[in-house]
Amino acid sequence: VALRFDGGLEDGRLLLLDQTRLPLEEVFLERRRAEEVVADLRRLAVRGAPLVGLAGAYALVLAARECLEGDTGSPRRYFEDLGTRAEEIASARPTAVNLRGAVTGCLRAAWTRKGGPVAVARGLLEAARELEAREVESSHAIARHATAWLGEKRRFLTHCNTGALAAPGLGTALAPIYLLHHRGAAVEVWVGETRPLLQGWRLTAYELARAEVPHRVLAEGAAAGLLRSGAVDAVLVGADRICRNGDFANKVGTYGLAVLAREHGVPLVVAAPTSTLDAATPAGDRIPIEERPDDGGTYLLATAGRPVGAYAPAFDWTPARLVTALVTEHGVVESPDEVRLAPWMADAGLQGGSGGGR
Amino acid sequence: VALRFDGGLEDGRLLLLDQTRLPLEEVFLERRRAEEVVADLRRLAVRGAPLVGLAGAYALVLAARECLEGDTGSPRRYFEDLGTRAEEIASARPTAVNLRGAVTGCLRAAWTRKGGPVAVARGLLEAARELEAREVESSHAIARHATAWLGEKRRFLTHCNTGALAAPGLGTALAPIYLLHHRGAAVEVWVGETRPLLQGWRLTAYELARAEVPHRVLAEGAAAGLLRSGAVDAVLVGADRICRNGDFANKVGTYGLAVLAREHGVPLVVAAPTSTLDAATPAGDRIPIEERPDDGGTYLLATAGRPVGAYAPAFDWTPARLVTALVTEHGVVESPDEVRLAPWMADAGLQGGSGGGR
Repeated sequence: VALRFDGGLEDGRLLLLDQTRLPLEEVFLERRRAEEVVADLRRLAVRGAPLVGLAGAYALVLAARECLEGDTGSPRRYFEDLGTRAEEIASARPTAVNLRGAVTGCLRAAWTRKGGPVAVARGLLEAARELEAREVESSHAIARHATAWLGEKRRFLTHCNTGALAAPGLGTALAPIYLLHHRGAAVEVWVGETRPLLQGWRLTAYELARAEVPHRVLAEGAAAGLLRSGAVDAVLVGADRICRNGDFANKVGTYGLAVLAREHGVPLVVAAPTSTLDAATPAGDRIPIEERPDDGGTYLLATAGRPVGAYAPAFDWTPARLVTALVTEHGVVESPDEVRLAPWMADAGLQGGSGGGR
Repeated sequence: VALRFDGGLEDGRLLLLDQTRLPLEEVFLERRRAEEVVADLRRLAVRGAPLVGLAGAYALVLAARECLEGDTGSPRRYFEDLGTRAEEIASARPTAVNLRGAVTGCLRAAWTRKGGPVAVARGLLEAARELEAREVESSHAIARHATAWLGEKRRFLTHCNTGALAAPGLGTALAPIYLLHHRGAAVEVWVGETRPLLQGWRLTAYELARAEVPHRVLAEGAAAGLLRSGAVDAVLVGADRICRNGDFANKVGTYGLAVLAREHGVPLVVAAPTSTLDAATPAGDRIPIEERPDDGGTYLLATAGRPVGAYAPAFDWTPARLVTALVTEHGVVESPDEVRLAPWMADAGLQGGSGGGR
């Protein structure tokens, strides 16, 4: 498990597996202060859209506790402070909508409580635990819906990391792979290494090796030839934000993979919980794309005595027309568009702006 | 200069810049024996199709000298030995046709000499030097033809390394960029880092920095979004082998880039000397593709205590229909196909099987 909140409001701590150190070291970070979690989110120690949302929800609990400790006795002042802290947490990672959605959703749920600051803080912990339980359920539901849709397909190409390190439970795009493997199917996974930060190689291969799922890692540049060769039955990816029209943001490289999948007649399946839906963003070109600093921990090697300038967007967006099927915990939408997604979007919208999930 | 042959037949030595150690160290290898050069070719210390061909031509000179040293007085035995050594050299790198073409072309040129083993060995040195001079001229001619075709285009995306480290002179696909820069044009180069061996990041960025050409490195996965953004006027790549129908092999990742360039209406320009033409191979799917060993110096990092299995083809092939323009030293062929390439192919065929160039 990549994230766990131990204890109650007074003594609770958040344990985070430091994903920047995988696969070489398995180190758990123990966090008692919200600002530590914000720093962990920014430096990608915890990543994966649903997990980022959950870390934000628990960070908000820690922030609420800190606000209680510094409480001046003025509820108004307390709620102002908490609002400021919530905004700091929500803006730690701009591309994935789950973070802001989780923070907003938990605040709305807790706000309805009677009883002032302490009751709201307890309400936030309860809301975070409910979100975690929902995301675990979503992950299993995604696995069931996706495996049903995939039928006899067994050979998958995936990108970045979308397994148990990215989301509570089985993950998102890796969830059906785990379920098929668990049922004894002979799955074969091609793992895009996912430059520049190598989440595919470092995290997905690590997860799949532990679960004993057969896999091979490849450079992104090898994907086109692999797809042409007929070795892939489906491309499976997650999403960091799904717009009202079905366009979606995901790890950089996804858009190119989507074009190549279409070119070679290989279906593209996007798996994500409805907490990733964003009714407020109409289309992909409106999604804020995080750009890593030039060095990005990646292009540090000096060339001719000076560092190499880099273009390092962390995400890209893919138009809905390239999506064969979108799988959420509620089922599958083929060829998603604004009309087909409208019922789910309305639902996500009702649950807390940018979606706290059901 | 990445390669230089110093001295004559008796005392000559081949100096090779070890490209595996760039950009951190500039180390020249001094080679007096052919088998050393074969090992250098295999481990990619010398790479780039035209440079590989030239290294093969000089390795053949070293082999001829070694055969003279062990000469039993039987010319027949000598020529048998030399033939065996030539085959070893020619098969060191299977994908680039330049290597076999250069070895074959030099042998044919030297074979016509009268005078037995010593005369043939001297003829091989002369043929290698002529090949070098031709390739330098080709590089400059490619630069002129390509800049004329490119017109006002100034923003280029390139892949792998195709500059002065890959070919004598200015290189192939980088040659027009150097010429434009030299003329004072404000060129802007996007450099695909080129996984798994990072030739773009390690070699192209190193070359461009030394020449003070503005450039930025990007992961292959970022290319699709970059092309969509309109920031690229043309994709410029080299080739390791161009088939009779215009399909071409190049560093893995080129095929995907070609599909993405077409998708976004960005021209794909392939620059290569005619020594890269291969009249004997009808189409791309017949080109042997080198696959690096699983670890490839790349996927050594252990996952869960064991190495990661990798799929690591070194090249891919791109269909001619995706090529906007092919530039050789003789000029530009737009939308190359078997008919349009026929005159050049006939010529390459006459010059020594798989092309020793004109």
